[in-house]
Amino acid sequence: MLTINSKRLLNNIEALAHIGRTPEGGVSRPAMSEADVAGRVWFQKKVEEAGLTFRQDGAGNLSAILPAANPAAQTLLAGSHLDTVPNGGRFDGALGVLSALEALQTIKEAGLSLPYHLEAISFTDEEGSVFGMLGSRALTGQLTAKDLAQAGQGPEPFEAGLKRLNLTHAGILSARRNLKTVAGYIELHIEQGTRLEAANLQIGLVTTIVGIRQHWLRFEGQAAHAGTTPLHKRADALWGAAAFVLQARDLVARQFSPGVVNCGQLQTWPGGFNIVPAEARLALEFRHGSEAQLDQMETALLQLAGDMARQHNLSFSASRRGGCIAAPMAPSLIQAVEQAATQLGLSHTRLMSFAGHDAQTLSAVVPAALFFVPSVAGISHNPRELTRAEDVINGANVLLHTLLALSR
Amino acid sequence: MLTINSKRLLNNIEALAHIGRTPEGGVSRPAMSEADVAGRVWFQKKVEEAGLTFRQDGAGNLSAILPAANPAAQTLLAGSHLDTVPNGGRFDGALGVLSALEALQTIKEAGLSLPYHLEAISFTDEEGSVFGMLGSRALTGQLTAKDLAQAGQGPEPFEAGLKRLNLTHAGILSARRNLKTVAGYIELHIEQGTRLEAANLQIGLVTTIVGIRQHWLRFEGQAAHAGTTPLHKRADALWGAAAFVLQARDLVARQFSPGVVNCGQLQTWPGGFNIVPAEARLALEFRHGSEAQLDQMETALLQLAGDMARQHNLSFSASRRGGCIAAPMAPSLIQAVEQAATQLGLSHTRLMSFAGHDAQTLSAVVPAALFFVPSVAGISHNPRELTRAEDVINGANVLLHTLLALSR
Repeated sequence: MLTINSKRLLNNIEALAHIGRTPEGGVSRPAMSEADVAGRVWFQKKVEEAGLTFRQDGAGNLSAILPAANPAAQTLLAGSHLDTVPNGGRFDGALGVLSALEALQTIKEAGLSLPYHLEAISFTDEEGSVFGMLGSRALTGQLTAKDLAQAGQGPEPFEAGLKRLNLTHAGILSARRNLKTVAGYIELHIEQGTRLEAANLQIGLVTTIVGIRQHWLRFEGQAAHAGTTPLHKRADALWGAAAFVLQARDLVARQFSPGVVNCGQLQTWPGGFNIVPAEARLALEFRHGSEAQLDQMETALLQLAGDMARQHNLSFSASRRGGCIAAPMAPSLIQAVEQAATQLGLSHTRLMSFAGHDAQTLSAVVPAALFFVPSVAGISHNPRELTRAEDVINGANVLLHTLLALSR
Repeated sequence: MLTINSKRLLNNIEALAHIGRTPEGGVSRPAMSEADVAGRVWFQKKVEEAGLTFRQDGAGNLSAILPAANPAAQTLLAGSHLDTVPNGGRFDGALGVLSALEALQTIKEAGLSLPYHLEAISFTDEEGSVFGMLGSRALTGQLTAKDLAQAGQGPEPFEAGLKRLNLTHAGILSARRNLKTVAGYIELHIEQGTRLEAANLQIGLVTTIVGIRQHWLRFEGQAAHAGTTPLHKRADALWGAAAFVLQARDLVARQFSPGVVNCGQLQTWPGGFNIVPAEARLALEFRHGSEAQLDQMETALLQLAGDMARQHNLSFSASRRGGCIAAPMAPSLIQAVEQAATQLGLSHTRLMSFAGHDAQTLSAVVPAALFFVPSVAGISHNPRELTRAEDVINGANVLLHTLLALSR
C-alpha cells in the first residue's frame, strides 16, 4: 500500500518550526509578519524541490499543484494554513499544509495519473492576526471591498501586512475562484481538544464545525445599602447572574451535550463593598454543531435568564452580539476519509469541531471535509502544543488515501 | 407631662432643609462646603435665640449648652450631625441635632435645674465627605496627627474644607475632651431601614452598631478555549465565585440572621466571550452586631469559599481589606431610652444598627445610646428620605424624657 515519506514530512515540520521560533520553544508566525514572509519563501522552495507547480493567488494563498492529464479537470483542494498565533505551536495549520504537500509529492513520485488536479493549499491568515480567514474567504468569494475596509484588528496592521506581502485589495478580490472548477476541500488538523486522546482513538472525522452564538445579558436590580437592607428585601443583580451562570452550565450539560456554554465575562455595578449590586452584565457564548439545536439552546438559555431574573426580583435584557452558523461537512467526503482510515487500520470516530477552521468557509460553497489527529492533553495555541510523530504520519496517510480514493 | 414644642421643631427642620436644597428637593450640605458653613451660621443663631450657650470646638463641633447649677458637674451629650451626603435627605443627622436642641430649650423653658450640664452637639463630617466622623473622633481622642495627614478623600478637599471653617490640624487635636467630664451620649437618628415600618413600631432601641468585615476573594482556575474544552474538563473561576455568592447568602440567612452579607463586586479575567474565565475577584462584606458572631461568620464564609474553589477545581485566596468592630451601646442608657418610650406610650423594640453613626465612635470611650424612629420605605441618602412628623415628634419627646430620667 502506498504511504507517505514519514521522515521527509517530520523533517519538514521540524524545519518550518524554526521559522518564527520563540525562546519558549513555540512558534510566532502571525499572518503577514516577517516570519510569515520567511515561511512562505521556505514553502515555495519545498514545492519546487518536490517538482510540483507553485502558485500564489491575489490573496496570498500558496499552492502546490499536481496537474491532471486533462487540463479541463476539476481541482481537489487539500490544505490548511501556515500562519500561527503569537507564541503558538508547530502543528496547528502547518500539519495540514505539509501533509497535503507530502501526499501530492508521494502521488507524483508514484507516477499516478489522476482525474483531478490536486492542489495543496495554504490559506492566508486563518488565525485572524490581521483579518481572519482572509485567504479562504477570498478564494470562495465570501469577501467584499467593504469587508476589506473593516479589518478585524483595524486598518493599520492590515495595510502594513498587505504591503509586506505585496498584496492589494483588488488582488484579494481577484483571488475568487470559479467554484465549478473545485471538486472539494479536505483539511487535516490537530484536534486541539482531548476527545480522541481520552477515547484512545487515532482519527476524528468531523461531522460539523459548530455554530457560535453570543449575547450580552444584563440583569438589573436596585442598588441598596449593604447594611440596612435585609437580605430578603434585596434585588441583587449579582444573585440573578450567578444563578444563571450555574444553571446554564447544568442545562447545557444535561440537554445539549456535546454543545458547550461559556460565561466569559461578568461585571457588576456600582461596585462598592457596601452597595448591593444594581446591575450585572454577562458575556454568554454557546456552541453546537446543529443550527436547530442552537435555536433550542438560545430559547432555553434566554428563558432561564428571564426566570432567574424574576426569581431574584430583577429585570433582564439580552442583546445578540455575534457568532457564526454551524458548518456541516459533506457526507460523501466524510465517508471517503473514514474509509481511508479503516483501510489503514486506524481507529476512528465521528465528532464535532468546536473551533473554527478554513474548512468552515469552504463548506459554505463546495463539499468539504475536516479530520483530526490527537493533540497531547488538548493543548494548543501554546508552545507546549504536541502531536506525536505516529499521529502526524497517520494523518498524512489518511489524507493521501482519501485523495487516492476520490480519484478512483 | 413635659413635651417638646412640636411646631418649633418641625419649623426648624424645614428651615434647615432650605440650606443646601437641591432642585430634586433633597439637601446637599456636605461637611465643610459653603452650604455647611451656612448651616452652621443658622444653627448658632438658633442656639442663641433659645438662650443656650453656643460653643464651637477646635474640630468644628457645634454645641448648645444648658449648664447645671454645679460648674463641676459632668456633661450629658445628645446630638448627631448637620452635614449630609450630596443630594441627601433632610432628616439624616439633622433630626438628632435639632431634637437635642429642642429638648434643651424645652428643659430650659420649664426652669428645671439638673445635675448634669446638658449639651446638644453637632459632630463635624459624620458622612465622610472629607474625612469621616472627624468631629466625634476628635472629641473622643481617637485621632492622631498622622490620621489627619491621611484624609479619606485625599488631602486637597480636606485642607480646603478646613480653611473654609477656619480649622487647623492642631485645633482639631485640641478638641479632645477629658472623658471623665462626660456622663454619656444619646443619639436620635432615623432608621434608614424598614424594620420599624414593617413591624409597625414607633421607636427602635439600638443594642449594638454592627461591626463590618471586608475581604477580597480570588478564585483562580485555568483559561481555556470555550469551544474545544468540554464542560466537565473546565476549571472555570466564575463557577466557583458564582456558587459562593449564592451559598454565602443562604449561609448567612440560615445561620447568622440578622447579620448580612454582600458581594458588592465581581470581576472576571481575561474576559473574552470565547475564553473560559481563569480568575474571578469578589468583594465580600459582612456585618453583625457581635464580634463573636463576626468571627464565626468569617470562618464559615472563608471555609465556604475554599469548598467552592475545591469543588470547581480552583485555587482560592482571601485578603482582609477593611471594616470596623461592633459597637455595643451602654445597657443603662438603652434602658433609660426604653423607659422614656414606655412612659410616653410608644411601641418599641430592640434592634441592631446596620449603618455607622457617631454613637459608635462615642461608645468606645463613654456610655452611649442610639435610638431610631421609622424611615418611610427605608429610603435614605436620597431626596425622597422621609420621616413622618409624628415620628419626628415622638423621637424628640423620647430624647427629652431620657435626659430628664437620667437627671433624676
